[in-house]
Order: sequence, then structure tokens, then C-alpha cells
Amino acid sequence: MTSKNYSTIPTHEDDGVSTIPSKPKFFEQKTTKHRALAAVVVSAIAAVVVTGAVMFFSKEEVTMPKRNVIMMISDGFGPASETFARQYYQWHENLEPKGAMLPLDEIHVGHSRTQSSSSLVTDSAAGATAFSCALKSYNGAIGVDPEKQACGTVLESAKIHHNMLTGLVVTSRVTHATPASFSAHVAWRDWEAAIAEQQIGYNPLGRTVDLMFGGGSCEFLPNVTDHVSCRADQRDLFKEAEEKFGWAVHRTRKEFDALQAKNVQLPLMGVFTPHHMSYEIDRRPSEEPSLKEMVTKALDILSHAAEQADQGFFLMIEGSRIDMAAHSNDAATHVHEILEYQRTAQLVKEFVRDHPNTVVISTSDHETGGLTVGSQAGPDYPEYKWNPEVIQRVTNSSEVLAQMWAQALQTNTATVDYLEKTLVAEGLGVPDATKIELKRIQDWADSGKNMEVLVTLFADIVSRRALIGFTTWGHTAVDVNLYAEGPGTDKLRGSHENTEIGDFIVNYLDLDLDDITRRLNEGQQFSVQDNTDYTTMLSNHQRNQD
Amino acid sequence: MTSKNYSTIPTHEDDGVSTIPSKPKFFEQKTTKHRALAAVVVSAIAAVVVTGAVMFFSKEEVTMPKRNVIMMISDGFGPASETFARQYYQWHENLEPKGAMLPLDEIHVGHSRTQSSSSLVTDSAAGATAFSCALKSYNGAIGVDPEKQACGTVLESAKIHHNMLTGLVVTSRVTHATPASFSAHVAWRDWEAAIAEQQIGYNPLGRTVDLMFGGGSCEFLPNVTDHVSCRADQRDLFKEAEEKFGWAVHRTRKEFDALQAKNVQLPLMGVFTPHHMSYEIDRRPSEEPSLKEMVTKALDILSHAAEQADQGFFLMIEGSRIDMAAHSNDAATHVHEILEYQRTAQLVKEFVRDHPNTVVISTSDHETGGLTVGSQAGPDYPEYKWNPEVIQRVTNSSEVLAQMWAQALQTNTATVDYLEKTLVAEGLGVPDATKIELKRIQDWADSGKNMEVLVTLFADIVSRRALIGFTTWGHTAVDVNLYAEGPGTDKLRGSHENTEIGDFIVNYLDLDLDDITRRLNEGQQFSVQDNTDYTTMLSNHQRNQD
Repeated sequence: MTSKNYSTIPTHEDDGVSTIPSKPKFFEQKTTKHRALAAVVVSAIAAVVVTGAVMFFSKEEVTMPKRNVIMMISDGFGPASETFARQYYQWHENLEPKGAMLPLDEIHVGHSRTQSSSSLVTDSAAGATAFSCALKSYNGAIGVDPEKQACGTVLESAKIHHNMLTGLVVTSRVTHATPASFSAHVAWRDWEAAIAEQQIGYNPLGRTVDLMFGGGSCEFLPNVTDHVSCRADQRDLFKEAEEKFGWAVHRTRKEFDALQAKNVQLPLMGVFTPHHMSYEIDRRPSEEPSLKEMVTKALDILSHAAEQADQGFFLMIEGSRIDMAAHSNDAATHVHEILEYQRTAQLVKEFVRDHPNTVVISTSDHETGGLTVGSQAGPDYPEYKWNPEVIQRVTNSSEVLAQMWAQALQTNTATVDYLEKTLVAEGLGVPDATKIELKRIQDWADSGKNMEVLVTLFADIVSRRALIGFTTWGHTAVDVNLYAEGPGTDKLRGSHENTEIGDFIVNYLDLDLDDITRRLNEGQQFSVQDNTDYTTMLSNHQRNQD
Repeated sequence: MTSKNYSTIPTHEDDGVSTIPSKPKFFEQKTTKHRALAAVVVSAIAAVVVTGAVMFFSKEEVTMPKRNVIMMISDGFGPASETFARQYYQWHENLEPKGAMLPLDEIHVGHSRTQSSSSLVTDSAAGATAFSCALKSYNGAIGVDPEKQACGTVLESAKIHHNMLTGLVVTSRVTHATPASFSAHVAWRDWEAAIAEQQIGYNPLGRTVDLMFGGGSCEFLPNVTDHVSCRADQRDLFKEAEEKFGWAVHRTRKEFDALQAKNVQLPLMGVFTPHHMSYEIDRRPSEEPSLKEMVTKALDILSHAAEQADQGFFLMIEGSRIDMAAHSNDAATHVHEILEYQRTAQLVKEFVRDHPNTVVISTSDHETGGLTVGSQAGPDYPEYKWNPEVIQRVTNSSEVLAQMWAQALQTNTATVDYLEKTLVAEGLGVPDATKIELKRIQDWADSGKNMEVLVTLFADIVSRRALIGFTTWGHTAVDVNLYAEGPGTDKLRGSHENTEIGDFIVNYLDLDLDDITRRLNEGQQFSVQDNTDYTTMLSNHQRNQD
């Protein structure tokens, strides 16, 4: 039970990463009038570099056995979340209390220690950079080291040194911190417009990603009236991706379904929603594929293409929104995200068992929410229990219910009856909300209308009854579980720094991150070439903390 | 940040184990007038059984290689507590953020799934019975199965089948749930007076424990005016232990220091405090040995005696009060208990490395407190950090400070100055307590004077500033870390039920728990032969939930 005062919650800009100002001075030195020119120059340099790189690097390929790495990241998934999901599953399936396991439990090998170079409590950017560059960096760092210099990633080295196939499959925006840290280099995570540019190929290394599935078209679409755009400029990156870098761009479920491993041409991207994809609990299957469906298709496409090319592949999969549900302290949405991730893990495990020289590693960047399985609902000494049946009755995320209430307020249809019956009794499955709980939601309209606050007002009605505890809207430091299967993964047993997961991939695939780092930083200081007015951009964003 | 209302907290009797009433009907059938007779009968039967057992069982010894098992239990120590202690240690010792590890991190092998047969959230009794009897039982069960029948323990089988040396070293009362579950059989954990009787030798198997160190003399001393007693009767179990079962009983630090492995005779007990031993943060070294000191001596004595007898030993070590500090949500006391446990683990690891055929297993029964490393201190979006320096400044447990305040109230010396300067500024190391925080403590006197509430009022002043979160005064369900070293411990890698730790010991030592169970339940229904008026007893107890 938490007594957070919901009256004021700052926006993402102030999300508490104390050591990194949201607009570092270094970047303020740039003047606006040079932006347009800088963009042209960067594009031109990149185009030259790309062509050169492909010719030059192809000579450098070294012989190595054909190997595949599937790196799964469960963002914001701590040890308590694993217990929560397992016990919920066991209860739901009416299994014996002894012996019930989730797919990942069966390949549990140890844990990962998560702190970043700047804090005892990491964020997702530093967390993912620890995996991708095998180094500790500061909270907010996307593929850059503590000095804000671009660092070579395992995905880039796999592509550049071995011409491996590469993919990113996520449920967030594809430009969000975790996928970005494998495929881009910026000094601050919020610069997603720049991340999108780098991902499609504007990058000293050229295009290094072959396949991307996820959400976030707003970062690719021009800021003109007929688009949902997060960009400050009028560039259409989908068009540029197709024309300059040869991407096939898909935007709908129908197009997704039509993709066949044998017929598709890489590079290929599927970007299915303007922002993040829907939570699994809210997802309409006719509109968006699930994580498992995307991974099924990605594995099919990549393994087929790798077979044709007689090369291996590197695929990064993220259960991105496990974290976001925990930020909202939304226990039911959190558990459904986890269960979809576990279904995906089962699929991946089967793939690994069927394919020699293939490794899966699954871990988290950090814990989110300070989730505890069991909590004290009031002043009485707590019962040693929690209530999965409360979780089962929830039918929508609190995020969606909050949006429905906010919309009802706008259209003057926000009646107590609508709140109590449609949103709380049906949506949350709570027929006995107290007057105080309902009044808190009604009063929200007079208190600044911060959507994140409204979301947690809904979510708390459930967690209080389920006896699931949360201590924060942010992250915590607890070590996260580490799962692995495949040749050589015995080395991952026990307690490890998160960076050692990057080290493992480097060794398994015989990569050379230092060489990539050198290439990235030749000439211009690549990672800090940022020329967008992010102050303007931020106001366009609807971001989740992460 | 938690908003628990501290106005009413029930006593231990109502500690929320919903499926087990505190006085099960079965036991209420007994009538008071038969109690004295029953006690005599039980003693007489036990005495006969003891003599017979020693003669009979000695014939049954089977040949096995000389092996030692050291089972360490960190009560109430979840994954977040390990991170908390490691990061505190790293900060305190000014170590690099990358690579700092505690002794147990180096032998991390997996985790233990903790739920009991009666709840998704276990208590310590069911938790320890899972290790000792290798079966899931109900919350409150001490060495009994879900049908309340005595179940054979690994300690008993080690003694009876192999004549191994056996020991229990704890910082709680030696009769508390964890040590009790290895050495006694009662249907409800609170029956510590009966547990004490069984431990010294009133047991169908006879005496099976060779060495006990810990607190809790109140359970052994007669209920007469010149003793601190928790017993309802006037039996002096120390005297009976010496006279009937040959125990050497030691009660002081001085006697402890004088113990020499070469000179002592077993069985031997050291019971140094009336109730639990002091928290490490409060402990006076001149009065009480530390956990590490007790374990050093126990290993010395047991390994020497085992060498003489050409047999191995089984030693159970418990960091008992890690849990109790978490129940009080007392972060600083919790971390100091953990660090003492880690120092002990280092010692044990070195012993294991120096002695072939010796295994150490360390795990927890469950998590306590819903502790999170990082929490939200107020309505602002949380910073991704926590503050070890706040923890460092604490010099006493909140339990001791609460006792000092309660005593000052009794003696009319409870001034604001005393509270603010002596207790809060000096004791907690918090010079800037707010008026509201101080007033809560002052107002406590008018609100029922529940000591547990007062303890948490002090503790919260620290955790709020340290950004350490708690969600409950009870337990949570999270899987707990599993650590092991020594031959065969590869089998403990990965995800395990807590009962599989018992299975491992059974296999490693070639034990036969079913045979012990059969012997325990021959004739009378041993485990439920309870003949004490616990209603009266409970009023004498000062218990910590566990």
C-alpha cells in the first residue's frame, strides 16, 4: 500500500536522472540556424560512408562458425515479477503448488547486477548499453560511453565484421531506449528522431539493421497535419528508408500477415502503431500482432535469410512494456505482458533446441515499480497471502481506462455511473470500489490532469485488493534474473555484471567492439552530432518513463 | 513510502496465517486436568525410548563416506536485500561500481521457490520444514506434514542413521521456528516450551542435537519469580538437560570464550540471552558473541569431534534476525544483520574449501518486508537512486530506540529534547527530523502503546531518507537466492522448489527421512502430544513475527 500523493507528477523531462540534465549544456551551444545545413551534411557524409563501408568492410570478414544469438530483454522485470507471473499462472491453471514453472524458470542460470556508471539505480538506456557495448555508462546513454562517445555494439559488429543478419523486435517504439542502444548512438535517450535516422542507415557504419518490428511511426513521419508525428522536421523517414537504403516498410497487420520468409527482401521494417504498441491485455489481434507473432515471423525470416547467405543472425527481442505497466503500478497489465514474454521465450527455446550453434539469453535491464508479491492493505498485521483472483478479473489496462475517463470528461459524458460500472466494475473487474476510490478519480479533473496520475489511481484499486505492493513509479536496484540456453551458456551461471552479458556475446560471435568504436568516432564526433530542437520535440511526445 | 496506519497492530496470535487458526480445535479437546499426568508419561516414555533408540539404532548404521553439510539460512532475506547489502558495502568501501561482490555472490547458483502448502506466501516454520523434511507443509508447521504428523528431518536422520555430529547455531531463541523445524515436531510454531523439551532429548528418537548456540533461555527456565521465563510450568529444562541427557549448559560470554574444541564434551548448549540475541548493530561484544564467532567455535568443536569419531557433521546456521529487522522495516539494522551473515558465509566458504567432502548451502525461507532498493519519497517523480549515507549514520536498531522511548515515558523523562537529540539525531543519525515525524512518536503513547508500531515509527524516519521502500510488515512471495559450494552442488543450479534443498541433503548424506518419520509416529502420535496451556503462555511472550 503506498500513500503517494498524486497531485503533481512531472513530465518525462524531469524523470529524476539527477546526474544528467535533460538538456546538457554541451548541446545548447548549437544554434538553430545551422540545423538545416547540418542535416544535409550528415546525410551526405553518411551516404558516402555507407557505400565505402560496405566495400571496405566486406574485405575484412573473418571466418567463424555460423552461429546465432537471440538476446531477449524483459524491460523492468525483477525477480518478484517472475514469482508473481508464475504463481498467477499456477493458480489460473490450477496446478500443484509444488513444481509449477514458467518457460524461463527452466533455463534460469543466475542474475545480473544492474547499476550504471552514474547511479546505483539504472535506467533502460544505460541498462541496454551495458548489453550492447559491454560497458557501464550513465543513465540516459544510448550506445555511448560515459564520455558521450559512440561505442560499438554487438549488433553492429555482427553485421560489419561477419555480415550476419540482424533484427530488433520490440513492443515499444522501435526508437525507444533498448532497441536504440543496439542500433544508434546519441547522448540522451529522448532524441528518438535522431535515433530513427541512424537506425535506417544515416550512420558512419551505414545500415546495420536488417529487420525491425515494433511501434513508433511518429518518429519516422513528417510533422505535417495529416500525420501523428513526433518529429520537429518535415522529413519522411519511411520514404527516405525506402529510397536511400532499400528498406521495405510495412505498417499494417494485413501487410505483416502477408510477409513470407521465402518472398521477403531485407532490410524490412514493420512499424504498426504511432507510439508504443498496445498492451497485451488491450491488444486487438485484428490490428496488431503480438510479441510472439512478431518473433515467430522474425525468426522465420532471419533464419531463412541466414541460411541463404550461409551466415548466422543476431536478434534482439524486447518485452518493452512489462516495464511501462510497472511504472503505472498496474499489476494486471504487468502480468499479462510477462506471460506474453514467457510464451515468446518458450517459442525461442524451441527454436534454440532445434538449431545448433544458437544461443538464447534472456534478462532484464532493471526492476521497475518496486513490485512485491504480498503487501499490507491497511493497519492490521498483514496476512501472508495475495489474491490472484483479483488480477484475473481485470480486462483492460489502467492506461486505457484512464484515457476513456479523460475522453468522457472532454465530451461531458463522465458520469459516476460510467465510472463505477463501465470503467471500474467492468474494466478493472472491481464491483465494490469505495466512494473514496471513486472520488479520487472524479477529483482528478481539478488537480492538473496529469494522465500518469490518473492511470495509477485506477491501477491502485486493483493492487490494493490483490495485495500486490509497489514502492515507486520509477526503478529499483535489485539484481535481475538471468536465463540462458545453448552452447557455452554455462559461463553465464552465477552472479554477473550486466556488461558481462555483452562480453559473452562478443566472445560467442567473435566480435570486435573496439574496432567498431574506432570506426564510429573517426572523423566527426558522431554520437553528439545532434541538430534537432528537442525542446520543441518534447512537447509533441507522449512518453512513458522507462 | 508507505502510508500504513499505525493505530492498531494485532499480536502474534493474529499474524494472519489464515488457514491455520491459532488454537486449532484438535488441541482444544485436551482437558487441563490431565496435563500434569501427561507430562510425566511423556517424559517416562521418552526416557525409555531414548535408551532403546541408542542401542537399537546403532546396529542400523550404514557405511557412507565421511561427509559434512553446512546449511545456512538467511531468514527473511530476499534478492533485493542482497543488492541492498552489496551496494551499501561497495559504497562504504568506496569500491568500483563494476565488480563488487559479497561472499555469497561468488557462490550464487540459482533460486528457491518458497510457497507453502497452505499459502502462496510462506512463513518461517513451513519454510524451514521444507528444508528439514523435504516436504511442503502449512504455515506454522514445525517438523510436521500437512496432516500435522511428525516428519523425519535431515538432522535426525544424520544422527540416527549415521551417528553424525549435529549442530544448530542461531541468533534467535534456539526454540524459534527455523532451528525448531530441524529438531522438533509440533503442530504450531508458538509452542516453544514443548520445542525446548524435544530439543534437549524428550523425543521418541532421543537426543539428536549435539550442539546448540543462540538465545532464548526463557523457554528453558522455570516460571518462578527470579527468572525471565516464557514457560507456563516450573520445570528447569537446563537442569533436566544436564541431569537426564548429559548436556553441558553455558549461559555467558565468558563461558563461551572458555570453550575449547579439544576439551569440551558434547552435547553442549550455549544460550546467551533470555529471548533473541541482540541485533548486530546493538550487540555488546563483551556480553554476546556474534554469529560469526559462534559459527567459528561451532565448526571448530564439531569438526574436531567428528574427526575423533571418524564421522561427518550436519550444522544448521541461521541469520535469524535479518527477518525481524525487515518485519520492523528497519533498513539499517537489516543491512548490518546481512553483513554479519556474509562475514559468516565467508568463514564457512573457507572451511568448505579446506575440507573435502563438505558442502555449504545458503538460502532463505522467504523474503520479509517487501523491501525495495529505491522508493518514492513523495509526490514528485522518483529519482533513480538511493542514499547509503543515511544508512551509515544509524547507530542503533529502532527496536532499542523504541524501548528507550517507552522506558522514558514510564520514568517521566520522555522530553522532546531527549527524543530529538538522543534518540533521533544520535540513535538514527537523523538531525533533521520533521515536527510531524517527532509528533507521531510523541502521540504514540496515546494510541495503545503497541511496541511494534513504535519501532516502525522510528525506522520509517530512516528509510524515507535512504529511499529504501517497504510494502508490508509481513512476508512476500518472491523467490529467494540460492548459494552453494562443494561436491555435487551443481545439482542446485537453476530454479528449485525449497523442498529440493532437503532432497539434495538427503541424497548427499544418504539419509532416509521416511524411516525417521515412521519411528517418530510409532505408538503415540508424537507431534500432536501437546499438553501445555498455550493461552496462558502466550501472554508471557515477547515475540517477533517471523
